[in-house]
Amino acid sequence: MTGSPIDFFFDPISPYGYLASTQIEALAARHGRTVDWRPLLLSVTVLQIMGMKPLPLTPLKGEYSRQDKHRLASLLGVPLVEHGLGGTVSPIKSLRLFMALKARDPALAARYAQRLCAAHWAEGQDIGDVGALVRVAESVGVAAGDVHDALHDDAVKDALRAAVDDAVALGVFGVPTFRVDGELIWGVDRLWMLEHWLDVGAWTPREGGAGT
Amino acid sequence: MTGSPIDFFFDPISPYGYLASTQIEALAARHGRTVDWRPLLLSVTVLQIMGMKPLPLTPLKGEYSRQDKHRLASLLGVPLVEHGLGGTVSPIKSLRLFMALKARDPALAARYAQRLCAAHWAEGQDIGDVGALVRVAESVGVAAGDVHDALHDDAVKDALRAAVDDAVALGVFGVPTFRVDGELIWGVDRLWMLEHWLDVGAWTPREGGAGT
Repeated sequence: MTGSPIDFFFDPISPYGYLASTQIEALAARHGRTVDWRPLLLSVTVLQIMGMKPLPLTPLKGEYSRQDKHRLASLLGVPLVEHGLGGTVSPIKSLRLFMALKARDPALAARYAQRLCAAHWAEGQDIGDVGALVRVAESVGVAAGDVHDALHDDAVKDALRAAVDDAVALGVFGVPTFRVDGELIWGVDRLWMLEHWLDVGAWTPREGGAGT
Repeated sequence: MTGSPIDFFFDPISPYGYLASTQIEALAARHGRTVDWRPLLLSVTVLQIMGMKPLPLTPLKGEYSRQDKHRLASLLGVPLVEHGLGGTVSPIKSLRLFMALKARDPALAARYAQRLCAAHWAEGQDIGDVGALVRVAESVGVAAGDVHDALHDDAVKDALRAAVDDAVALGVFGVPTFRVDGELIWGVDRLWMLEHWLDVGAWTPREGGAGT
């Protein structure tokens, strides 16, 4: 029961990241692992570094994901709404607050991150709005004053920038990405692969059955 | 044992398509389904329509997939080599031949397609080369003369173009894509999701367990 933590890279604007956020703590606990929640900005990796369009605006794939995320939510038994906010929501403030909370108490930051993703994808809230962030923060016991302080702290801004740089340096580009024992696993559709690693510790088929 | 066929969209230049090509026939048979092998050109969907770079040339994601495909091959227990041919291989001729064979005998075309993907990814052959195509064709009982005839037949060229247009019209963009009962499922990492649909017939969790 003492394996190294699972790094969990999330960006609240990703529906697939939200779906994974509903599963990762229980999955890790089943295997005696903890979760290190780490922020990613898809606007940096997908748009700036990879030169791609945002997923909702990508021909064919955008339409696929519009349907697909609901299938996965149904399979996982979690709520998912169409928030109708398009690609206009910025996660920057919400992730700055995450960094401030993580410096104070990583477990608190993880609870905030779970609520944050759910506020956007299960309740349809605009998490680019400071009022929404205050409500999420208050729901995990953080005072509104602390939210405002965090959002105006240059050290917090720097911490988020450094965290995203760290993720990119590890090769992380998409959300969700899981990193365990040095292995990167991208996609909520690969929870089976994360479980496989945690069970088997190698990329060999399970005894007596197929790898999948 | 009489479900509708599973459409299987492949492009031999995709390693993930190759990996799926080693699994799909047995998977379908386990569920009383047949497979309709259908061609896709990633150069049309990914490059032209979606405006993306080829996967090997995409920052971060290219490096991820270079490692990742070997993990999946290991999990599936199939060979996979680094062919070292970069993004220079054109699948056009190989897929024209596929269309010619499919018009003659779909089962023969499927056997050819399996051998074609394996020639590239398990043996490292350059499948843009007509000599390699002849060897693959001969291995499934097709004469070299038939290969040359097919590659110079304008009707075959038109048939491939129409098949790719049909795939795009269905919303297919990536390889492998499975289409069953109107559901599109993209990715070899989603074989579990295809199996789920074939077992359950809905996007609801299995009784007594999680969906994944």
